[in-house]
Amino acid sequence: MATKKRPQYIVGVDLGGTNIVVGAMSADGKHHHAMRSIPTSAEAGADGVADRIVGLIEGVILDTIAQTDASRRDFLGVGIGAPGPLDREKGIVIIAPNLGWRNFPLRDRIGQTLGLPATLDNDANCATVGEWWQGAAKGGTNVIGMTIGTGIGGGLIIDGKLFHGASDVAGEIGHTTIDLNGRHCKCGNYGCLEAYASGPAIAVRAREVLVREETASLLPSLVNNRLEAITAETVYRAAAQGDAVASEIVRDTARYLGVGIANLLNIINADVVVVAGGVTQAGDALFVPLAAEVRRRAFRPAVDSCRIVPGSLPGTAGVVGAVATFKMQHVGDL
Amino acid sequence: MATKKRPQYIVGVDLGGTNIVVGAMSADGKHHHAMRSIPTSAEAGADGVADRIVGLIEGVILDTIAQTDASRRDFLGVGIGAPGPLDREKGIVIIAPNLGWRNFPLRDRIGQTLGLPATLDNDANCATVGEWWQGAAKGGTNVIGMTIGTGIGGGLIIDGKLFHGASDVAGEIGHTTIDLNGRHCKCGNYGCLEAYASGPAIAVRAREVLVREETASLLPSLVNNRLEAITAETVYRAAAQGDAVASEIVRDTARYLGVGIANLLNIINADVVVVAGGVTQAGDALFVPLAAEVRRRAFRPAVDSCRIVPGSLPGTAGVVGAVATFKMQHVGDL
Repeated sequence: MATKKRPQYIVGVDLGGTNIVVGAMSADGKHHHAMRSIPTSAEAGADGVADRIVGLIEGVILDTIAQTDASRRDFLGVGIGAPGPLDREKGIVIIAPNLGWRNFPLRDRIGQTLGLPATLDNDANCATVGEWWQGAAKGGTNVIGMTIGTGIGGGLIIDGKLFHGASDVAGEIGHTTIDLNGRHCKCGNYGCLEAYASGPAIAVRAREVLVREETASLLPSLVNNRLEAITAETVYRAAAQGDAVASEIVRDTARYLGVGIANLLNIINADVVVVAGGVTQAGDALFVPLAAEVRRRAFRPAVDSCRIVPGSLPGTAGVVGAVATFKMQHVGDL
Repeated sequence: MATKKRPQYIVGVDLGGTNIVVGAMSADGKHHHAMRSIPTSAEAGADGVADRIVGLIEGVILDTIAQTDASRRDFLGVGIGAPGPLDREKGIVIIAPNLGWRNFPLRDRIGQTLGLPATLDNDANCATVGEWWQGAAKGGTNVIGMTIGTGIGGGLIIDGKLFHGASDVAGEIGHTTIDLNGRHCKCGNYGCLEAYASGPAIAVRAREVLVREETASLLPSLVNNRLEAITAETVYRAAAQGDAVASEIVRDTARYLGVGIANLLNIINADVVVVAGGVTQAGDALFVPLAAEVRRRAFRPAVDSCRIVPGSLPGTAGVVGAVATFKMQHVGDL
């Protein structure tokens, strides 16, 4: 009588500037168990945040054990997605401005505390791999993932493999120039895509219009006339209600993203572009003009062979992808 | 007594709008035999040009036989580099505006006439592979090749393999946007890198300065005051002689190319960028400000892990690369 092979589990960690999200999955990717989220509390310092992550992982492992017949030895390890730039091989976060970290050995700090193997990869790479493994980019061979939030992160699947480049910076889509004499970006440069289409950039552009022009708009009323309280979220909400100023901001955002994506298509000739983040809430109001701008700028065969889709794993792509990156490194293919 | 294995040969074809260049190499890449060039004479039509190519190949095969102890059966086949977009699998040039071609089955037209296997790939891809196999990009794992001439073509080596993307358009660097409201490009768009830094764009920018500004410059005297006769070549010559207007044009060109290359580095994180074409004649006057602009715009780890070099096979990279692409498809690795 053959013993049935016990299922194995992998934990995924998505470390962001605002929240830490941790979840466990069966190693075959079929089952998701226990997803937990807590605030990052970056002010706790690198060691403090690492302790919070370890605590959250312990909780997720216990939850998973409670939900399944798993025991602790059925956990293969932990995949961690963190903001970069990072040194994957050494498992070090080189700089994370939103966390205030510099050269922090996050992977070993977590792996050794837990006594489990761990891997570290870029958060935007993880989100892309998540969408590719189980989300909107499934089946793609050459995939571009864009995550639009506080910044614009990106990841690339090339020939069916996560692509890192020579020093783990491949896919930094947010800091490609779309207007060489354009808006100042917080990276110090001018005209980066991120300076136009990130969440904060969307809010800034809305405020500029309201201050500059005497136009009727819902926007001020949505923030009790405190323009500084406008966020990208406010803009999407006003646009959804038909506000002309907000709709114009969303259309411009679509155009900027379209330029950035057209550049990527002419370079990478991807078969899938998956766009994730709050801005995708705008739905067709974003994707229709975005696709039009891409068609205008990218080569016809590149446009025809590519689908541009919103992410289908909002909130979890990073965790799913962190599990996947661990699996690719320790188990082999997905 | 073992029979010594006879050397084998591959013919490479570099089809351009102006010239056809054909050469033969030993399949191991060690020996170059017979390199011949004739005008393309696009007015002869697609079939006429194909006949010219076949005639040139026959001549190169005869030259090679005369120079070595090869016989005709020692020729494995012909690699062809042609302007795109093209359908590699079918061996068809889809559109070649400079040649006036549309859906021309170039590969089979040549292969069948000669009775030899043939492959077709993009000319800029071939130039990149040539520099990677035997030129300035040797040893690179992720290589970006740029060829600056009438247009700006590009090719990508990703993880040690020529990368084509989903529909053979990968690497179309010339038509990435660097200024979304910028100069009109002959592709119909605005702000493409090619509209700033191709040979004709360099000449146009020089003429604009001369017409607009009352500045002393050598340029008019180099063309007998016929400003319409200024070419990129004239600009490099004047810059080399210290002309201020021409030097400024070269510096601006460097800046535009720097923006385009920085974008590529942030996306691809390459270890080598090889820049080929007439503009590289400007030497340090081009490469120093170009590198400075790249440093300003690309991520530090991407800059630190990349060398940006001029091509070292001027005039022959396309033929060498065409041989290489044939070899990769019919023999295996290089």
